[in-house]
Amino acid sequence: MIESSKHDESLVSFNDVQGDVLSIPHLIDLDDVSLEDLMIIFRTTKAMKEVMRSGAEKRAILTGDCVATLFYESSTRTRASFELAAKRLGAHVINVSSLGSSVDKGESLSDTASTLESMGADVIVIRHSHSGAPYLLAKKLQRTSIINAGDGQHAHPTQALLDIYTMREKLGQLKSKKVVIVGDVIHSRVTRSNILGLAKMGAQVVLCGPPTLLPSYIAPQFGKSVFANVELTTNVDEAVVDADVVMALRLQTERQKINGVTSIREYTKLWQVNAERMSKANHNAIVMHPGPMNGSVEISKEVACSEASSIDDQVGNGVAIRMALLYLMRKNRE
Amino acid sequence: MIESSKHDESLVSFNDVQGDVLSIPHLIDLDDVSLEDLMIIFRTTKAMKEVMRSGAEKRAILTGDCVATLFYESSTRTRASFELAAKRLGAHVINVSSLGSSVDKGESLSDTASTLESMGADVIVIRHSHSGAPYLLAKKLQRTSIINAGDGQHAHPTQALLDIYTMREKLGQLKSKKVVIVGDVIHSRVTRSNILGLAKMGAQVVLCGPPTLLPSYIAPQFGKSVFANVELTTNVDEAVVDADVVMALRLQTERQKINGVTSIREYTKLWQVNAERMSKANHNAIVMHPGPMNGSVEISKEVACSEASSIDDQVGNGVAIRMALLYLMRKNRE
Amino acid sequence: MIESSKHDESLVSFNDVQGDVLSIPHLIDLDDVSLEDLMIIFRTTKAMKEVMRSGAEKRAILTGDCVATLFYESSTRTRASFELAAKRLGAHVINVSSLGSSVDKGESLSDTASTLESMGADVIVIRHSHSGAPYLLAKKLQRTSIINAGDGQHAHPTQALLDIYTMREKLGQLKSKKVVIVGDVIHSRVTRSNILGLAKMGAQVVLCGPPTLLPSYIAPQFGKSVFANVELTTNVDEAVVDADVVMALRLQTERQKINGVTSIREYTKLWQVNAERMSKANHNAIVMHPGPMNGSVEISKEVACSEASSIDDQVGNGVAIRMALLYLMRKNRE
Repeated sequence: MIESSKHDESLVSFNDVQGDVLSIPHLIDLDDVSLEDLMIIFRTTKAMKEVMRSGAEKRAILTGDCVATLFYESSTRTRASFELAAKRLGAHVINVSSLGSSVDKGESLSDTASTLESMGADVIVIRHSHSGAPYLLAKKLQRTSIINAGDGQHAHPTQALLDIYTMREKLGQLKSKKVVIVGDVIHSRVTRSNILGLAKMGAQVVLCGPPTLLPSYIAPQFGKSVFANVELTTNVDEAVVDADVVMALRLQTERQKINGVTSIREYTKLWQVNAERMSKANHNAIVMHPGPMNGSVEISKEVACSEASSIDDQVGNGVAIRMALLYLMRKNRE
Repeated sequence: MIESSKHDESLVSFNDVQGDVLSIPHLIDLDDVSLEDLMIIFRTTKAMKEVMRSGAEKRAILTGDCVATLFYESSTRTRASFELAAKRLGAHVINVSSLGSSVDKGESLSDTASTLESMGADVIVIRHSHSGAPYLLAKKLQRTSIINAGDGQHAHPTQALLDIYTMREKLGQLKSKKVVIVGDVIHSRVTRSNILGLAKMGAQVVLCGPPTLLPSYIAPQFGKSVFANVELTTNVDEAVVDADVVMALRLQTERQKINGVTSIREYTKLWQVNAERMSKANHNAIVMHPGPMNGSVEISKEVACSEASSIDDQVGNGVAIRMALLYLMRKNRE
Repeated sequence: MIESSKHDESLVSFNDVQGDVLSIPHLIDLDDVSLEDLMIIFRTTKAMKEVMRSGAEKRAILTGDCVATLFYESSTRTRASFELAAKRLGAHVINVSSLGSSVDKGESLSDTASTLESMGADVIVIRHSHSGAPYLLAKKLQRTSIINAGDGQHAHPTQALLDIYTMREKLGQLKSKKVVIVGDVIHSRVTRSNILGLAKMGAQVVLCGPPTLLPSYIAPQFGKSVFANVELTTNVDEAVVDADVVMALRLQTERQKINGVTSIREYTKLWQVNAERMSKANHNAIVMHPGPMNGSVEISKEVACSEASSIDDQVGNGVAIRMALLYLMRKNRE
């Protein structure tokens, strides 16, 4: 299966994707996901969007399934997005968070997950502050699919999938497109997963931010290059020239206590994605943000609300991506 | 449409209300709601009660809809009441609270609401400590209906609707009926919304409590009168004479640190709704309380459990009122 | 009805149990439950397991019902187990916890429960740190069934039911079987309920642990004997000889601050259920744990993951037991 422009122009009905099967039982990060699997996910997502748009009820698809969300970090959007995706397909949802649960009692992660599996959870959606936690569960559990909803500073594959889906929806094929990611790159699991996915799409990635917030391990000029398609720079005004996508990252003030940044004011002056900077990008360039935003810090309100902003599309596509993944993983377990 | 006694005596089936459409897309406060709209809400509520009583499943009514509850203040009853109302009609419910959510990360209210709208939320039920928060969302969002579940000290329209519905159910027409509201009036959004609704019904309202807990801005004798039908007094023994409804308000000790009240004991002696005081009201007078109660403080246990008490009816009618509103707002979006 | 081995060998279909009716409207503790009722619960549980295994949807069984979980202590597994059981049968579930609810505002337990009843809750599943709280609600409420999900150090009947069901599934009839319960017995509501249920089954119970963690009031050698079938000992190596079941209890470090135990290390040495000790039990003996486990403290990882371990079965049977109870209580209310 090749990435054709047909993908983005034609309708994909739910029946069209019935024959597609993923080769992976879990979603831990995008390095595990082949280009063919990516295309299956995107086609199925398109079908799911069609399902939602038509108002056709597809509750029968996951009837009897149980999706457990197991969140050890706070989240509104990701948890709610999975919950809604599961419910729209008819699954039961059990929310487990570290507040008010056995997690408080010091139960180990893998015991909690085993318990959920024994209760009949078909999918566990996990967010954890430790990198590798979802991988641990995928190795340990036998019947339950694991979906990584963010682990430490490692990966956030469903966010990257919805980002890439949204870029393709807006721009068509991503081969040789220039994607600029601006901000707190070093702490960003969203960026790591996007780099992996965008590499498979043939896109060029430029990472931009304060020197202390750029990952020295990843880019060519700092030694061994992991990704040929990734560049680093501290100069956002140069980075955005001819960009097709500019993605502003949340300044995660709660995580880093703003170390690496002299002040919010300086950050805003030097790296905020604003209208002046966007004027240097391609004329049809889009702006993205994984949310939640610090309004007027990493992105100006003007840009966030502009025509170029695809932030609402990202959120809407997020539900569809998660519907597609839940559906495809169910087929894998049958 | 006029308020007829027929409303309270005859059965209203679900089919009878199919043609009714509200003129408002959101419910922010009762000053926005015309008498005609009030009558539509009450008729539909009656039909919903019939649905519940008959055990007829009406899950098809809101099938595919998503109702998001967005609560920035703690609540059991209001959140659960909306949740149950939505589920009884077949909607998906996503609960978002300020505990364990992006709200912790300082995301702005309107960004959170936009996210929920982009995910496909058809209705957002919001409770917020800032007056005006629901109005802000109603202006900002485009496809999502907003229902105010309590904002600051401003309004709590669904509580007032269920109160007024319960009064009508028990007493028939409310024209010239005397409704006495006793307690911490100044902090009470329930009272504010009741005043607005009861004014449209033609009822007389007497607000009664310690001088420091009465709102000086509202009543005629303190200058510009907003409502011709509202009186203020500090003497509860006089206020309850010939009352048709006596509503005791929660002494919100967590909000005011009992300022304005010398002691709980003094409050109880001077303003508690008790049997002796109720003996001065009309013989068929009813007692109400918006809950949660401080037992034996603002209301005696004897009165709370008496024949006159309509507190359980209020709670049951609350679910029906919310079912009616969710249904009517869905029709408005079609 | 007598306990026959037929129960454990033959299939029980959902139709087979349609005629069975419990004699009790609530489940407070197992001393209220007759042997006949126990057999009905176990037969229905078997039918529920068949329902789950076959994938047959039974959402119609509790359609329109509302199950409220009211948890004043943190819990993952018990709350999630009830929630999933209810959803699998089509009930609406409302979760109320003491975090973020009116409970914070000091509302009394019985007022909160009355509110849930007035909203239409058909069943309230309650966990509370005060012994007797579920009994209080059962007396107070009129239309709502109460299920005790753990009250103080008093009772945890659904855990005992799933334990006993699992023992019967593995071992057949329990008459004269030897069940050894090891650890923090004195604080264990699970143990108390198991003693009551196992007495009805005719099983012998040995309670074993540090002297400070054994209940002096319960056993024959410490004066008036409540249960003829219960013995106490501090020597686990003697206790496990010829055991059919060895159940390790969680060392509830958060509850007792390890008083009564010199150190975790000493506890592990003297009372941990490990492979060496299990080698003294019957060759087909099973190991159980109510969870959540302190891995490598009260039970060795080797034993917890061994063939003899029935811990996952306990969890799976827990959902089925709760489905059975919700179904049977619904029939009682009809």
